[in-house]
Amino acid sequence: MRKNFSILGATGSIGDSALKVLENFKENLNLVAVSTNKNIKKLIQIIEKHSPEYAVITDKGSCQEHFNSDRATIKNTKIFSGIEYLLQLCSDKKNNIILNAVSGKSGLIPSLKCLENGIDLALANKESMVCAGPLLKKTARQNRCSILPVDSEHSAIFQLLRDKNSKDIDKIYLTASGGPFLNLDKSEWDKITVAEALNHPTWKMGSKISIDSATMANKGLEVIETKEFFDIDYDRIKVLIHPQSLIHSMIEMKDGEIYAQIGPNDMAIPIQNSLFYPEILENRYNRFDFSKTVNFQLFPVDFSKYKMLSFAYAAGKNGGLYPAFYNCVNERLVDYFLKTTISFLDIEKYMERALDIFAEDRDVEKNDITIENVDIIENISRKIVDNLIK
Amino acid sequence: MRKNFSILGATGSIGDSALKVLENFKENLNLVAVSTNKNIKKLIQIIEKHSPEYAVITDKGSCQEHFNSDRATIKNTKIFSGIEYLLQLCSDKKNNIILNAVSGKSGLIPSLKCLENGIDLALANKESMVCAGPLLKKTARQNRCSILPVDSEHSAIFQLLRDKNSKDIDKIYLTASGGPFLNLDKSEWDKITVAEALNHPTWKMGSKISIDSATMANKGLEVIETKEFFDIDYDRIKVLIHPQSLIHSMIEMKDGEIYAQIGPNDMAIPIQNSLFYPEILENRYNRFDFSKTVNFQLFPVDFSKYKMLSFAYAAGKNGGLYPAFYNCVNERLVDYFLKTTISFLDIEKYMERALDIFAEDRDVEKNDITIENVDIIENISRKIVDNLIK
Repeated sequence: MRKNFSILGATGSIGDSALKVLENFKENLNLVAVSTNKNIKKLIQIIEKHSPEYAVITDKGSCQEHFNSDRATIKNTKIFSGIEYLLQLCSDKKNNIILNAVSGKSGLIPSLKCLENGIDLALANKESMVCAGPLLKKTARQNRCSILPVDSEHSAIFQLLRDKNSKDIDKIYLTASGGPFLNLDKSEWDKITVAEALNHPTWKMGSKISIDSATMANKGLEVIETKEFFDIDYDRIKVLIHPQSLIHSMIEMKDGEIYAQIGPNDMAIPIQNSLFYPEILENRYNRFDFSKTVNFQLFPVDFSKYKMLSFAYAAGKNGGLYPAFYNCVNERLVDYFLKTTISFLDIEKYMERALDIFAEDRDVEKNDITIENVDIIENISRKIVDNLIK
Repeated sequence: MRKNFSILGATGSIGDSALKVLENFKENLNLVAVSTNKNIKKLIQIIEKHSPEYAVITDKGSCQEHFNSDRATIKNTKIFSGIEYLLQLCSDKKNNIILNAVSGKSGLIPSLKCLENGIDLALANKESMVCAGPLLKKTARQNRCSILPVDSEHSAIFQLLRDKNSKDIDKIYLTASGGPFLNLDKSEWDKITVAEALNHPTWKMGSKISIDSATMANKGLEVIETKEFFDIDYDRIKVLIHPQSLIHSMIEMKDGEIYAQIGPNDMAIPIQNSLFYPEILENRYNRFDFSKTVNFQLFPVDFSKYKMLSFAYAAGKNGGLYPAFYNCVNERLVDYFLKTTISFLDIEKYMERALDIFAEDRDVEKNDITIENVDIIENISRKIVDNLIK
């Protein structure tokens, strides 16, 4: 069967990999629609090459500016603009599955909309799961559709747990490259520049996730995502540094045996697996090369160095809206760091203070995970951060 | 349910690990019987500690010599001697499962006898599977019982393939420590002594399997065993050197993802898993330690160095009784090496010649795998080896 699918956030690095999957599996996939926030140049390239039925530019202003109109047509592809059209895309039941590769908390409502419409969701936007995992899962259950993980780590765990009995699982190990500053002494972290922080050693990704990888907030979000996806206690989710990024994750069974997923650093494979689940299709890209010596190194995380990871565990253990707060504070801080308003070390410094302020705030709802409450949390987090910084 | 089980070859290193499992799972296991070829001293220790219902000394002469009788009683355990009692043990339907840890081709008939009686077989004796895999599998099917692998590599593959669809599998990677001579240049192999060859870097095992590990004939037997257990073409069975022996084996799926089983170097775990399959019981020994840095290294085998492995692939691809011949020639050559009749390098030299002689022999049946024909092959192999050596 040919699957109809769409890509939200198609102009990012996950979009690139998803389009590579499409090119390789034309007989299995039909591209319904793509969206971008405002990368119109790249959107046009995608339209010219892949001819989706339609496209959405979420940022109406950018569309206006480029086309002198809030809509346009390129070849046979209609282009609409505005968040309302993005949500319409997420409600288009022609889709068998939608890949959400939007960056940040703004991916949440699109995720929810897909699930409300009973459309399977291939989720690269980890922030949705972090901010409102229980809500997404409930919605998926009610509408009998699935949330498939796309992150290489969660895809690995998802595959490793396939057909396994959850009572037989003892631990999940998330691997982390350690980012660009693994070997930089913490005393030198005050000098880190934006360019240095963006320079990830093993994966080429967007700026937000690259900074998150450098602070390991990304791994923190993944720890929370792991809890939500696989329903396992935080005490049984471990993070190990694995600089080569070849072991994507591991599970430890009750009997002490550990199962690892190893693969090339190519996001096309987890994307392919999420789109075609439960089927496993052949690899049409690069396979892992054992013709040369391969070294895998694994070692414990230094939590005193990667404080953003500690804070994520703490937020996760608090539960409720704490993970959403952690995520929104992080997004705001990363924004300020990218604009060089704050330093790299300020990210963890302000996160710590923000979490303290939030914990002491008796007036805000911290448990009931609804879209409205997540929005309130986002507003509060912005105010707290802005107050701390000014 | 408490499982009734027996151990054939209980006085070897697999026996030690199996008894460790018994000690840790007394509520789940009941030891019916144990056997030894002639290690009476150790057999008595086992009887005193574990009180099996009965015991068998296969070598009647040793029993006579020790007890001045062909039978004896220690505490409440009756001891019988002779191959006929070993086969009676294998036919004792009180057993839910029998662990065959006999060394060499002499484990074949006991394996077959268990299966003929519909008793599940936990198979550490890889030589049975190599000599007569198709016959054992057919017998298991006819009598509705199972053959469970015990070798750490095959146990790993067995667990990795659990619930996987064989059409999704692309390759199986067997890992090999490389044995004690991995870093010794082949030009120095002519000086290797028996003591050096027995000194395996990662596993403490019996002498036959230790020598096989040094030549990598052991990995050759395991390649053939893999073919028999998992019904996969030789071209898709790969061997990788992994000096740390922590990755027990790997499978590569059609999609290019690789799944590895990692665990402590403790045979108790695969034995436990074979005895309790399909259940997974908790680990009561040591778990893998990720609190320190762990390094896994994998690299290709140098087939020009490890010729015994090449010969095993060739014998396996020829099929029929070739694997049995390879195995029996190897057993004979290892015997002679242990007695210092031949040198370490002579093992591969004579194996090559023996295979050539066998290939050219037009009179011997090479395809029909029966117990009688395997015995004929064993006799022929001995004659060929003895002729070459004298």
